[in-house]
Amino acid sequence: MKDISIGLVTPAAIGRRWLDAFKRVAPHLKVLLNDEITDPGAIELLLVWKHQKGVLAPFENVKLLYSLGAGVDHLLADPDLPKNVPICRIVDPLLSFSMSNYIIYAVLEFQRRMDKYRKDQQTGTWDHYAPPERTIHIGVLGLGYLGQDAACKLTGLGFDVSGYSLSPKNIPNINCYHGAQLDSFLTAVNVLVCTVPYTKKTHALLNQSLFNKLPKGSYLINVARGKVQVASDILAALDSGQLAGAFLDVFETEPLPSDSPFWQHPKVNITPHIASITNPEAGVQQIMANWQRLQQRKPLDNQVNLQKGY
Amino acid sequence: MKDISIGLVTPAAIGRRWLDAFKRVAPHLKVLLNDEITDPGAIELLLVWKHQKGVLAPFENVKLLYSLGAGVDHLLADPDLPKNVPICRIVDPLLSFSMSNYIIYAVLEFQRRMDKYRKDQQTGTWDHYAPPERTIHIGVLGLGYLGQDAACKLTGLGFDVSGYSLSPKNIPNINCYHGAQLDSFLTAVNVLVCTVPYTKKTHALLNQSLFNKLPKGSYLINVARGKVQVASDILAALDSGQLAGAFLDVFETEPLPSDSPFWQHPKVNITPHIASITNPEAGVQQIMANWQRLQQRKPLDNQVNLQKGY
Repeated sequence: MKDISIGLVTPAAIGRRWLDAFKRVAPHLKVLLNDEITDPGAIELLLVWKHQKGVLAPFENVKLLYSLGAGVDHLLADPDLPKNVPICRIVDPLLSFSMSNYIIYAVLEFQRRMDKYRKDQQTGTWDHYAPPERTIHIGVLGLGYLGQDAACKLTGLGFDVSGYSLSPKNIPNINCYHGAQLDSFLTAVNVLVCTVPYTKKTHALLNQSLFNKLPKGSYLINVARGKVQVASDILAALDSGQLAGAFLDVFETEPLPSDSPFWQHPKVNITPHIASITNPEAGVQQIMANWQRLQQRKPLDNQVNLQKGY
Repeated sequence: MKDISIGLVTPAAIGRRWLDAFKRVAPHLKVLLNDEITDPGAIELLLVWKHQKGVLAPFENVKLLYSLGAGVDHLLADPDLPKNVPICRIVDPLLSFSMSNYIIYAVLEFQRRMDKYRKDQQTGTWDHYAPPERTIHIGVLGLGYLGQDAACKLTGLGFDVSGYSLSPKNIPNINCYHGAQLDSFLTAVNVLVCTVPYTKKTHALLNQSLFNKLPKGSYLINVARGKVQVASDILAALDSGQLAGAFLDVFETEPLPSDSPFWQHPKVNITPHIASITNPEAGVQQIMANWQRLQQRKPLDNQVNLQKGY
């Protein structure tokens, strides 16, 4: 594999992390980052994350295209995507470690009333007798690799967990809903965890009409993509009490604009899209294993289905 | 069981919860709370939590004494404890649900740098590229029922977990230390979770000398008893950086005095001893099942070992 020509097209800070990982895991390979790629036509293995539109056009001889994260919406939205080239994405065990633990923290933030106890600490209030826990029914919207992992771990912690996916799933100890059962699913839960991929079908899915189907005072956690949610509808639902609070890692525009009401909202916790960041070491190993499968004409792991969009 | 005489000696707010639970679970039973007990000599089953010293002396005909929580240190410290009466404590599955989830939240608060992201939200800072996770090695000090449950659940979430107990234990996927191996255990962990019972041996165990055996920048979580820790030593270790932070549910004096530096300490999260509060419904069922075992002269469940003190 010494002669394989690898290109990396991604924001510089992320690119440096991947270059380091290649040096550690596969030091014999030469990987070019962004401007170092002077001859795009020579690149056979192209690794992409958050690229600028148009920059992929000159990569005419790519044999395998890789998204460096779990989401491929940004990649598939590009009309200059190389044609007839298999596209794969990283499915990193550490990705689900990070994602599920983030989700669990967000669930517990609400269930254990940690906002109250944090405020009580600030005001010097010792309130031992208030009920310290809320009764919750968790619903995981989207039962892909990451959604399933979170659902199973939450069940393991003793929570009542339901899940919804387009196609039917059968997961031990999870109440699985699918297809036309979305409304029944929403009625049955009061903590909604969104882990859907971003597709045409999930665009603006987290809107007022959906929130109104949840019990009053529900909690929203979104770790999927910002464009799955409608910020103004979340804010209205928080004002009316339909939503009791929200824990958001993703936003319609990122970085979140400085005039967004989310920054100072007392019922909202925000983080800067860090719920789950791909671990480059594990990623490099997956990429090279898949490259080898391609050479051996074996089916690829974690190949993106272009019809489904994920 | 209609004629059994049951007395409840506990702070009023807690007592009312237990009376409600008895009404729901065993409505045929008459339970007297505090001042309602006009004839202590008639009480056969006595349920106690946070009682005042001296009040137990007149209860001369008790056949079974129950602590309404997992800890029995307060009860055993009373010289007026009825003699030759079996003492049991509640071991509530919901107790471990609450305790383990509290511990997991506290671990993630540190591991996911949530204090940083909360501050960033307050100051309008979007920092996507900082490493969002810390590498941690969790050590659970005390592998009783609650400690083991937390250790196993943390392992299930993908964490590296060690445990220490006086007697040897063998728990799958947990690095178990015991007896004279305390120092080796402390050297190997950087998040210390204290779940020991309060006994003469654990009095002031969490002190400067112990903190100095942890790697610099470790994190302390105490959900056991306040008298297990030395507040001034925690504060000194936070000042020196030996401890990076602490998540404390218990304190040497409770309620925590208003002049305690913990209230406003930027590296400390405090809660008012609410990590795990016994669920009265589950408790009533256990108490009545054990009363029946006593009538049938069967061995009791969860009887306290007076030598060990727990």
